[in-house]
Amino acid sequence: MTTTRLEAFSDGVIAIAITLLVIEIHPPELDGRTLAAALWDQWPTYLAYVLAFAQLGVIWLNHHRIFQQVQVVDGPLLLLNLNLLLWVVLIPFPTAVVADFVQDGGEPARTAVALFSAVLLACAISFSALYLWITHDDQVLGTPLDPAVARRARLRFSLGLGVYAAAVALSFVAPVAVLVLHALTAAYYAFDQATVASGEDQPAPRPA
Amino acid sequence: MTTTRLEAFSDGVIAIAITLLVIEIHPPELDGRTLAAALWDQWPTYLAYVLAFAQLGVIWLNHHRIFQQVQVVDGPLLLLNLNLLLWVVLIPFPTAVVADFVQDGGEPARTAVALFSAVLLACAISFSALYLWITHDDQVLGTPLDPAVARRARLRFSLGLGVYAAAVALSFVAPVAVLVLHALTAAYYAFDQATVASGEDQPAPRPA
Amino acid sequence: MTTTRLEAFSDGVIAIAITLLVIEIHPPELDGRTLAAALWDQWPTYLAYVLAFAQLGVIWLNHHRIFQQVQVVDGPLLLLNLNLLLWVVLIPFPTAVVADFVQDGGEPARTAVALFSAVLLACAISFSALYLWITHDDQVLGTPLDPAVARRARLRFSLGLGVYAAAVALSFVAPVAVLVLHALTAAYYAFDQATVASGEDQPAPRPA
Amino acid sequence: MTTTRLEAFSDGVIAIAITLLVIEIHPPELDGRTLAAALWDQWPTYLAYVLAFAQLGVIWLNHHRIFQQVQVVDGPLLLLNLNLLLWVVLIPFPTAVVADFVQDGGEPARTAVALFSAVLLACAISFSALYLWITHDDQVLGTPLDPAVARRARLRFSLGLGVYAAAVALSFVAPVAVLVLHALTAAYYAFDQATVASGEDQPAPRPA
Repeated sequence: MTTTRLEAFSDGVIAIAITLLVIEIHPPELDGRTLAAALWDQWPTYLAYVLAFAQLGVIWLNHHRIFQQVQVVDGPLLLLNLNLLLWVVLIPFPTAVVADFVQDGGEPARTAVALFSAVLLACAISFSALYLWITHDDQVLGTPLDPAVARRARLRFSLGLGVYAAAVALSFVAPVAVLVLHALTAAYYAFDQATVASGEDQPAPRPA
Repeated sequence: MTTTRLEAFSDGVIAIAITLLVIEIHPPELDGRTLAAALWDQWPTYLAYVLAFAQLGVIWLNHHRIFQQVQVVDGPLLLLNLNLLLWVVLIPFPTAVVADFVQDGGEPARTAVALFSAVLLACAISFSALYLWITHDDQVLGTPLDPAVARRARLRFSLGLGVYAAAVALSFVAPVAVLVLHALTAAYYAFDQATVASGEDQPAPRPA
Repeated sequence: MTTTRLEAFSDGVIAIAITLLVIEIHPPELDGRTLAAALWDQWPTYLAYVLAFAQLGVIWLNHHRIFQQVQVVDGPLLLLNLNLLLWVVLIPFPTAVVADFVQDGGEPARTAVALFSAVLLACAISFSALYLWITHDDQVLGTPLDPAVARRARLRFSLGLGVYAAAVALSFVAPVAVLVLHALTAAYYAFDQATVASGEDQPAPRPA
Repeated sequence: MTTTRLEAFSDGVIAIAITLLVIEIHPPELDGRTLAAALWDQWPTYLAYVLAFAQLGVIWLNHHRIFQQVQVVDGPLLLLNLNLLLWVVLIPFPTAVVADFVQDGGEPARTAVALFSAVLLACAISFSALYLWITHDDQVLGTPLDPAVARRARLRFSLGLGVYAAAVALSFVAPVAVLVLHALTAAYYAFDQATVASGEDQPAPRPA
């Protein structure tokens, strides 16, 4: 199997998951309010939409950065990628849970944010497993790899693991702060943390 | 990242958003009416479908006209494109709100049309930001660019900004007129306003 | 714009429309029945699914047969193709209406089948308009075209127009017979009616 | 028609079907429980999601392994592939039925698992028909084929037929055991059973 085919399938799945986020945003019931007030009252839905869109957008970006470097698609890579997609496809579900319960405060808000964080943690674990496999020797990359560079890249890329694990724990204390943390983490991964040989040694005028 | 990959992902997202429009059209409850009458009574749903389809169709057309000219995908372009998709994916939501409330008249109709117009305005702003970045120097286009031609193209392409902003304001006065305005704007963008070097200098027998 | 890009977008839209058919099939409420009986009682849903899948599958097949012959994508072709997609994307809606009302008999069954037939007629009209544009001269095909062959191909391809128009009328008399007619029409279009220079003059051992 | 186009359409359909699985997972109603308890109580939904994801993932893997070997797309292949997709697209429906009824035990649980197994059996029959057509002579493969190797490959690939048929029968006795059996079958097909000339004669260090 070629990288193209694997990427096209993964792109399709991520594109659909990101677009399905909108079907959780329903026209409100008025219940005696103006439509403007009713639309305003469902702000947690919009917030959850933007947060989840950012997460999925960043997952798409990093999926490409990683697969741009892959030359050989082997069996473990296929299964590790399907495992990643299993968790990525799930994201609209905790997003809807956050939208429904974050306004309630108390246990529901805390549990909802913890669920959202836990699914993102599962994505991060799956992503790191994929990345470790790809960089564990030079067969998948199809190019010689400096072990020190690879180690730094793995560290940079896997930083999210710690952050998402902390987010799950923190959800039970300060759920709103955790949502801010997820926005910051998305911003961190919007910049390239996945290219093995970037940064210090090679100048890249405008990296994509 | 190549243009192909960025275009394929964007195409996928727009194709899904345009197809999800149909899931807002439900078989009606009869409530003692004939099915023909019940189907007829939900005409705002069909109108909203056609209007939103035209908007998304035209967004797809122009996305291609723009990316046909792009040679180099850099970081800002990726993020500006994800920002555009964030708003494009949202379109089925205000479409459903218009379908549900336009018939009610009064505040709900005005607010529904204003919301629809506001999301289209956000798409137009995102699209113009993308277009400004692409034409701001000749690095992304990969070809020398006549500043006068670029200025005219930017003006022609960004005309929608003013129209959509006016549509938001006008929604509070004449919501039905605004829906007509959106149909006309879609027709305007169906013709090519995005090609930098088109029109005056080069004859193009049948521009696509 | 290249044919590839137009085909990829159309493929995406048709693939999504065909897959969205499944979301109209819901797990039943038991209401005191066994699950087996409850599943059995929603047979019109399964029938509607298979019928609509066949229509969309055949639309996809013919879309390719047509675009395989296209060399030049011009403006009218783009708009005629978007118009076709507007009707194709709609198909899951009349499918759901047929599933909900065909069992009721009387006016609802007749109207439901007439709606289904009318949307298929609109698809056929849009498809024929596209086909007429493509075969109206040899610029889009990019190859000289024998007028007599083109006329026969147009006739063969547009046969559906008459059948679907008759189906709309017949729906008010014999709705179940019309569903059988749609199955037969799908079978007719499963075989190649769209290739301009096929059949009589050139042997093609196994045409796809 | 080229293999590429057929594969892209099939990939699109499978990618959408796999992603639609998530829309069957809804945020729960609390009904006086904590959110954590309410989320926990819908574990059959998560189980059904993982099981169905594994089935669809494995279908995608094997679809590629098969089409990598195909050189010529003919009419029967197109129709056999559409027939396979008809059943694949259906998978989210029995998945939702299992999620809704497996916890009830008794007739509903048995019927739900039997339905799930029957749809997978239909997929397996369709897949085997496709595989038999592809390997029935060397025209589709475009390469000479050792009859003994082909026979062994067909046997290895069609093993699932027997397993899924047994699963349908077993559903009426031990529905939970059948779900375990489906997980094992998915694991079996995750490894390559579809490549005609693999295994004994040619060493392939890391087959994908």
